[in-house]
Amino acid sequence: MNRPPAELCRRLQYDFADAGLLERALTHRSKSERNYERLEFLGDSVLSFVVSADLFERYPALAEGELTRLRASLVRQQTLAELARGLALGDYLELGSGELKSGGFDRDSILADTLEAVFGAIYRDGGLASAQRVILGLYAEALAALDPRSIPKDPKTQLQEYLQKHSLPLPSYHILEVAGEPHSQKFVVECHVAGLPAPVRGEGAGRRRAEQQAAAAAYEQLTRRG
Amino acid sequence: MNRPPAELCRRLQYDFADAGLLERALTHRSKSERNYERLEFLGDSVLSFVVSADLFERYPALAEGELTRLRASLVRQQTLAELARGLALGDYLELGSGELKSGGFDRDSILADTLEAVFGAIYRDGGLASAQRVILGLYAEALAALDPRSIPKDPKTQLQEYLQKHSLPLPSYHILEVAGEPHSQKFVVECHVAGLPAPVRGEGAGRRRAEQQAAAAAYEQLTRRG
Repeated sequence: MNRPPAELCRRLQYDFADAGLLERALTHRSKSERNYERLEFLGDSVLSFVVSADLFERYPALAEGELTRLRASLVRQQTLAELARGLALGDYLELGSGELKSGGFDRDSILADTLEAVFGAIYRDGGLASAQRVILGLYAEALAALDPRSIPKDPKTQLQEYLQKHSLPLPSYHILEVAGEPHSQKFVVECHVAGLPAPVRGEGAGRRRAEQQAAAAAYEQLTRRG
Repeated sequence: MNRPPAELCRRLQYDFADAGLLERALTHRSKSERNYERLEFLGDSVLSFVVSADLFERYPALAEGELTRLRASLVRQQTLAELARGLALGDYLELGSGELKSGGFDRDSILADTLEAVFGAIYRDGGLASAQRVILGLYAEALAALDPRSIPKDPKTQLQEYLQKHSLPLPSYHILEVAGEPHSQKFVVECHVAGLPAPVRGEGAGRRRAEQQAAAAAYEQLTRRG
């Protein structure tokens, strides 16, 4: 499974002065105590800073909330895991036998965490300018394809903005019911909106999801009524 | 109320090339469309990165979870607001009349956001090295006084670590009841722990708080039993 990390360095376009840092960034906690977790802590903050600074320059007219949404779309697990797959990062991972058997080398969470650790290792090895170059290189396509209008707002935000725009009071959410076994609970919530004749219900596997569903339904009712 | 910003620059030990950036960092949205919110977005990520990188170097033996807790204690609103008060930042704030009347110049949330915006402005004006110098200068005392052992773990983490250390299965949490009106709901949860004869209950104003209370009670029972 494991390929020589030199290949990965070519893909990253970065050569480590201290190869031990890259090795550590590729080692999952199931394999060794000397694993990537500390580097992931560091890399996560490097990534967030590099992306924030780039978005700030790139979109001088966007408000803070929109910048925050764009950043979230870039640093979330799914985006990181896709970039990691583009680097074939899973082929270089050091996993313990349990994680190996259960396919950990292709799990989004592990791939995303490992890529953050690699960013942390590059920062530690070559400084911020190196980390910035590698991160912006990997993200070049994603950044160029970014369309601020295309990032959909979540339903609760959408509903709140609609109500604010029409000078209506903010909605309130109320849990009606929680049913089911631990780990598979279903939430039923009600969303109270000033402009609607009755509260609107939503359901989901978590409170947040149930509230989003209720907000989406409330928003639809409001906009249908004009 | 408003003092000349030159005084603030002396306190920060930083001179702005572009004084407009500092002005903007000190302007609340209640005062003007040209306010600090974008700079706050930038400054928040600069601060988090600078503090993360410092903690990473300062504590080579600490695990990721502990570094995360230390960082949270340093970048949280209360700590930022204290530092802002040390700079008398409220005296330089530009607020709209509503916020002025309601004492916004001494509100933790506004002081913390403004200080983050000031960090963003310094980064924008003088680059990362300047921002790093100012941030680490302001945080010098807090960093020196930091004692990793003094940051208490939250009860759920404590319980989980205890169970892992004793090779017991992880706890599961189950909502039993949600009662009360919207905005004042009470959650009752049960925590199932392998080592205990019966599930342990907790209550609180939110699910998280109820779970933390249940975890604290479960941890106490476990450690009392030895």
